[in-house]
Amino acid sequence: MTLRPLSDVAADIRLAPEDVLPWGRDRAKVSLDALGRSQRQGRLVLVSAINPTPAGEGKTTMSVALAMGLRQRGRRAVAALREPSLGPVFGVKGGGTGGGQASLEPATDINLHFTGDIHAVTSAHNLLAALVDNAVYYGTPAVLDSTRVRWRRALDMNDRFLRHVLVGLGGKAHGVPRETSFDITAASEVMAILALAENLQDLEARLGRILVGHAPDGAPVRAADLHAAPALVALLKDALMPNLVQTREGGPAFVHAGPFGNIAHGCNSVLATRMALAYGEEVITEAGFGFDLGAEKFLDIKCRASGLWPRGVVLVVTLRALKHHGGASAQQLAAPDPEALQRGFQHLEQHLDSIAAFGLPAVVCVNRFPQDTQAELDTLRDFTRQRGVETAECEGFSRGGEGSLELADRVLEMLDRTDAAPPSLASSMS
Amino acid sequence: MTLRPLSDVAADIRLAPEDVLPWGRDRAKVSLDALGRSQRQGRLVLVSAINPTPAGEGKTTMSVALAMGLRQRGRRAVAALREPSLGPVFGVKGGGTGGGQASLEPATDINLHFTGDIHAVTSAHNLLAALVDNAVYYGTPAVLDSTRVRWRRALDMNDRFLRHVLVGLGGKAHGVPRETSFDITAASEVMAILALAENLQDLEARLGRILVGHAPDGAPVRAADLHAAPALVALLKDALMPNLVQTREGGPAFVHAGPFGNIAHGCNSVLATRMALAYGEEVITEAGFGFDLGAEKFLDIKCRASGLWPRGVVLVVTLRALKHHGGASAQQLAAPDPEALQRGFQHLEQHLDSIAAFGLPAVVCVNRFPQDTQAELDTLRDFTRQRGVETAECEGFSRGGEGSLELADRVLEMLDRTDAAPPSLASSMS
Amino acid sequence: MTLRPLSDVAADIRLAPEDVLPWGRDRAKVSLDALGRSQRQGRLVLVSAINPTPAGEGKTTMSVALAMGLRQRGRRAVAALREPSLGPVFGVKGGGTGGGQASLEPATDINLHFTGDIHAVTSAHNLLAALVDNAVYYGTPAVLDSTRVRWRRALDMNDRFLRHVLVGLGGKAHGVPRETSFDITAASEVMAILALAENLQDLEARLGRILVGHAPDGAPVRAADLHAAPALVALLKDALMPNLVQTREGGPAFVHAGPFGNIAHGCNSVLATRMALAYGEEVITEAGFGFDLGAEKFLDIKCRASGLWPRGVVLVVTLRALKHHGGASAQQLAAPDPEALQRGFQHLEQHLDSIAAFGLPAVVCVNRFPQDTQAELDTLRDFTRQRGVETAECEGFSRGGEGSLELADRVLEMLDRTDAAPPSLASSMS
Amino acid sequence: MTLRPLSDVAADIRLAPEDVLPWGRDRAKVSLDALGRSQRQGRLVLVSAINPTPAGEGKTTMSVALAMGLRQRGRRAVAALREPSLGPVFGVKGGGTGGGQASLEPATDINLHFTGDIHAVTSAHNLLAALVDNAVYYGTPAVLDSTRVRWRRALDMNDRFLRHVLVGLGGKAHGVPRETSFDITAASEVMAILALAENLQDLEARLGRILVGHAPDGAPVRAADLHAAPALVALLKDALMPNLVQTREGGPAFVHAGPFGNIAHGCNSVLATRMALAYGEEVITEAGFGFDLGAEKFLDIKCRASGLWPRGVVLVVTLRALKHHGGASAQQLAAPDPEALQRGFQHLEQHLDSIAAFGLPAVVCVNRFPQDTQAELDTLRDFTRQRGVETAECEGFSRGGEGSLELADRVLEMLDRTDAAPPSLASSMS
Repeated sequence: MTLRPLSDVAADIRLAPEDVLPWGRDRAKVSLDALGRSQRQGRLVLVSAINPTPAGEGKTTMSVALAMGLRQRGRRAVAALREPSLGPVFGVKGGGTGGGQASLEPATDINLHFTGDIHAVTSAHNLLAALVDNAVYYGTPAVLDSTRVRWRRALDMNDRFLRHVLVGLGGKAHGVPRETSFDITAASEVMAILALAENLQDLEARLGRILVGHAPDGAPVRAADLHAAPALVALLKDALMPNLVQTREGGPAFVHAGPFGNIAHGCNSVLATRMALAYGEEVITEAGFGFDLGAEKFLDIKCRASGLWPRGVVLVVTLRALKHHGGASAQQLAAPDPEALQRGFQHLEQHLDSIAAFGLPAVVCVNRFPQDTQAELDTLRDFTRQRGVETAECEGFSRGGEGSLELADRVLEMLDRTDAAPPSLASSMS
Repeated sequence: MTLRPLSDVAADIRLAPEDVLPWGRDRAKVSLDALGRSQRQGRLVLVSAINPTPAGEGKTTMSVALAMGLRQRGRRAVAALREPSLGPVFGVKGGGTGGGQASLEPATDINLHFTGDIHAVTSAHNLLAALVDNAVYYGTPAVLDSTRVRWRRALDMNDRFLRHVLVGLGGKAHGVPRETSFDITAASEVMAILALAENLQDLEARLGRILVGHAPDGAPVRAADLHAAPALVALLKDALMPNLVQTREGGPAFVHAGPFGNIAHGCNSVLATRMALAYGEEVITEAGFGFDLGAEKFLDIKCRASGLWPRGVVLVVTLRALKHHGGASAQQLAAPDPEALQRGFQHLEQHLDSIAAFGLPAVVCVNRFPQDTQAELDTLRDFTRQRGVETAECEGFSRGGEGSLELADRVLEMLDRTDAAPPSLASSMS
Repeated sequence: MTLRPLSDVAADIRLAPEDVLPWGRDRAKVSLDALGRSQRQGRLVLVSAINPTPAGEGKTTMSVALAMGLRQRGRRAVAALREPSLGPVFGVKGGGTGGGQASLEPATDINLHFTGDIHAVTSAHNLLAALVDNAVYYGTPAVLDSTRVRWRRALDMNDRFLRHVLVGLGGKAHGVPRETSFDITAASEVMAILALAENLQDLEARLGRILVGHAPDGAPVRAADLHAAPALVALLKDALMPNLVQTREGGPAFVHAGPFGNIAHGCNSVLATRMALAYGEEVITEAGFGFDLGAEKFLDIKCRASGLWPRGVVLVVTLRALKHHGGASAQQLAAPDPEALQRGFQHLEQHLDSIAAFGLPAVVCVNRFPQDTQAELDTLRDFTRQRGVETAECEGFSRGGEGSLELADRVLEMLDRTDAAPPSLASSMS
Repeated sequence: MTLRPLSDVAADIRLAPEDVLPWGRDRAKVSLDALGRSQRQGRLVLVSAINPTPAGEGKTTMSVALAMGLRQRGRRAVAALREPSLGPVFGVKGGGTGGGQASLEPATDINLHFTGDIHAVTSAHNLLAALVDNAVYYGTPAVLDSTRVRWRRALDMNDRFLRHVLVGLGGKAHGVPRETSFDITAASEVMAILALAENLQDLEARLGRILVGHAPDGAPVRAADLHAAPALVALLKDALMPNLVQTREGGPAFVHAGPFGNIAHGCNSVLATRMALAYGEEVITEAGFGFDLGAEKFLDIKCRASGLWPRGVVLVVTLRALKHHGGASAQQLAAPDPEALQRGFQHLEQHLDSIAAFGLPAVVCVNRFPQDTQAELDTLRDFTRQRGVETAECEGFSRGGEGSLELADRVLEMLDRTDAAPPSLASSMS
């Protein structure tokens, strides 16, 4: 497919040309200088979901669809999403660029090397590992107990043989034998730090605090004790800049940083979200797994660390998943089953209660499948409306932005209702 | 320092703008389509050296200096050099972008991630390793004897603890215990293949022929038997495009592929050399170690594989190194020592004989140091002139192109003398 | 100290001289032929204890003391005990030959190599391990999945570094890398088998049934599949013969086989018990840990396998341990504490109930310490008498057989009361 | 077969009954006290051989045969030989108790556990290993560099999987990962020490000097630094006593200690040789491999350490081996081949020269095979006679002592000729 020139996409949201650094075809990084050049502040929308099922809920697809729908309504909407890991691409999981007509481009490049951010994290992670083992070996600049090293190695590869390894074999010239492991890069603490860092100084400070092991007397040894942080920052300098790509319909999307949700906070970078808010009217971001784990992490880790706060939540559901939570078997999810759906509403209700507990308004988004019946959809609408929450259908997967207009409208209404300042972090914590 | 816009540098050698893909600041890749758009064919000059000493001869620095000097003489000269490995940057060796006033820019970026080529090689290498171990584990798509796996893993890091490792520990779910090693990426066979491939099809064919191990009956198992080649090509698609940067004086340089000379052929890529020849009048390329090992590999491997052939050789020497080869101790190299110099000439003479044995004309280039005396330089000039070879001094390190004019002139004279077609590969082999 | 000639000790119980094979000084093995030469059948007394505490109850010491006391009353009493493991001798635990005046001799030799039984078990265990790895390596005479080998190696040494090891490193000539472990020999299944075997044929059959691992299709692979049993029997031929030593007072004791109670049944060998019953009037044997674990294992494993059954139980207690079970701290155990003692009686009562549940009569034996007060001892006597069980004090540790006469008398009374045939195994199981 | 009572065998050479400790059936150890009870000093005969071939020369068989022949001539001859290792018994090599009618009994027991000497060496070796690793782990009583530990482990088992192992895996509680190896026990330095020790004090001193590794500063760490020697001596106390068995014809033989000749001196123990000399008129001992390696080690290590010196040498040859050394193929060794035999004499001559260089008289012993022809034997006799050396045929393998009378007679003649005192060690060294 033919994409719009990325410079045009950037111009749409008024990014200065000198801040946009092309990075191969249809990819760019945006200079951190751009943050200082905008005084605007868009409205942040968090897309989360009910708990994931084997059937899939399409959170990323709905995020892209919402951005598309808002753009069709004339808004400068910007998606701010995580970048996918190469490991799972060649392993089990699908790519992380949305699906169908609601996807990001250039999908293949984003799913492979993209702009090299993950490679930079791998390099930084393993440079620290080499410095750690040098310290084990030479006892400088810090003394480490070789049996209590905590820092492992990283590789952006799904490779079972690397989960438990022994390094340093082959005699004194090759180190000291140690049991360790290779984590997939998305599970690296460096990736989590990259996603939280506010600037190069903050990045260096956070890297320096990494706990790499213990001294023989049990005292903690940190990356800063190995004088490691400046070299790591040198390797991560480019990676800290948010990446700009576009939706299939030519709308802007920042795709940046990808810490795994099962071991870290699982959200895109603070800097990409800030950049999107500085240049977009609405910013669509996503938090992993269900609202219970992923969105609470988003609110409790990323938002507390950064001071950001969403204006509202889009909770993605599918009828299939609700029926699954209601006890229907995997083979029967496409068929109507009012009882299972009704039982699944209990699951949905719990998530709506959690959203309300944070003082946030919500829209339920049904990622519509062809087999969904109107009767079932109406039941869902009634259920949520009784709880004061609107439900919007979204056909973004099959129809792109045009199929996402209802969702866009409901979200705009929600945002307009929230005209007061967003609840302060403090009040949400009380 | 402020660099010229890379688009201007590309325009100087008449590259079409659509063939130049910016890759971050001051770096670009050049589309392989550009090869078909030029019918020209520049003159290839090989820069080699006498055997390396701890004192250093400055082969890369002299290559850049020669390109600078030729450009000051009004020639569209292009350097075509190897890209440096990140591993040694944080390890022992210096960077690979020349030195002083005769260097490439942006040096830091070239020495770190550059355009991600080495990361792509690492990814491809380790994806093949994961496929190999999957075959060890599942016995499909090929059966491998776990004790006779030859394919190791790669990481772009100087890390002694990874030279001899055990993978697959921790019980059946984590694989089968195997002793193996992590090679530095520049020593990967994938890197050697990238440097020799003519196009994507050739790349895939070469990757498929990699020997990864043996079946229980001893039969060879190759990457193609694991259906690995298409996935590796997908990872190497961008990496196959030559990278364009510039000298400190704004002249063009292709820096692409970096296989280690101690285990592979040690030259930049065939495609970068072809691209430079298609757009430059003179192309300066380099071959590692001394002429005996590095240049013979260049001629016997890269040239035979590609059909390329140089028009002449620049043999880099320093007075210090000649004195070292003549028996002077490391502490005395800066002081005049006519006897040691004279004895070192035997070493030089052997290399000149080797060059002549290939039917190639030569210029000796003295990488001049401040302490070098005129008397010593004159002795050297006399010695080489008696053997029919001109000697040129080069002060590129301290003075850039302006200090390299004598070298440029001698090289141009040599090339002009060689007006006949270069000796065919066949004749040089007879 | 000067010991009686072992031939005299053997003659006391009417062993034929040709059945007694001297094995170094003061040690002998008794030929299995001796079993067929006696039609007599002694009375089996099981010595067990309440649950062990850090203070120690002295089960082995009381067993030796009881044998000494019975001998002073003119009985041909024989102790039948486990042989200690060399590993713990040089590690943490004390030896296993009793204590004070109630010990076995030659204590040092028994605690070190004794008659080589444990070395024979080590050899047999590791020969099987070598055969297993040969099968892993060559695939004959059975095919084994290298990741599912269950047979480990054994060494009679407390060596933490051998608990988790990797063998087969160093390339194809040195095997296939495998994670495994060295168990202490007393924890070897071969030791457990030696202790249960009835004769050489039974030994071979039991060894052949050892599960050593699994074939690639999951089918079990046993020692017999490796044709291993005959070679193992050859190594265990001498070890199968019971060992004869003496108490410090010159009474006979069979000390044979020592499987650990925490992973096996923890009793001396069936053959030694049979030999003692064939030549002794009373046979004192012991079962590890408390009655709950150790004696139930004795009854449920050793007795069921062999058809043996005890005529009564001696349950060893100390006032210190009862107070400990009653909540007194380790520092206060020597001081009188009637409340703690009273609470500790609940613990004792549970064990008495367990003994009764097996239909066995019991005598409580107080291993008397100097600090024990008469008042506390009287309370204990009253407590057990109310439950129909006599309590006997024993000062065997400090006074040998002479200090054990009360215990001997109570045991003889108990045995005489049990004049009916012992409850059959079948009835105890119903 | 029925053997003589070992007490009768001992009585033949006038050993006091209290010095002979029976050790199971037909085996005994002899107390070191016996050394002080005899003032006699027998004549030591060294049996060596030409270089070993696949055909086998039968050095041990000829040693036993010579002892038998001498006994038939009425001499109190005693064999003093090495004890075989269990490892090779279940591996490749044959047992070490001679062959045919010229063998030791009880052969099976000698080849299996014998009197436990090798097990004691294994235990002592591994106890030291455990103490070494405790020092690595705790840093007391000496500090060891974990990468420079030299002391390995030992097992009396031919087990390829144990040649290169990793110990200490599984986390801090299980030690520190270290690469090491299991040597076969016969290759243990403890075995070599046992064979050289003169008494318990000397044994302790030699054990204390074992180099186990290095401190972080490179200083040697010895067993004595770990306070290890007393515990090792406790384990080796019984093993230090020579073992007494008999030939098939009821003559005495000391079989004691078995260090491998390829890594140690390869001879039986000094104490067994001393004991044999104290009680025998002639003592037949053996030194491994050919005279060049094995006998020179005997003379240069065992004799220098002990002050012992042989009165003469028996050099074992076979016609087959001589033809093999003369170039005949393995298939043709049984057939007459005068040329090959003649060429093989050069090999024999070299060994005779070596014997003469030590100032020792020699008899050549032909271990006769059924296919050997009289003509070939006569050629050999002529060859050696020209060099002043008698040749004796020996049919001990098929006929025992009666087939060894010629050998016995030639040896007695040689010894009688050497009536002067044996050359002092000093003179042989000048």
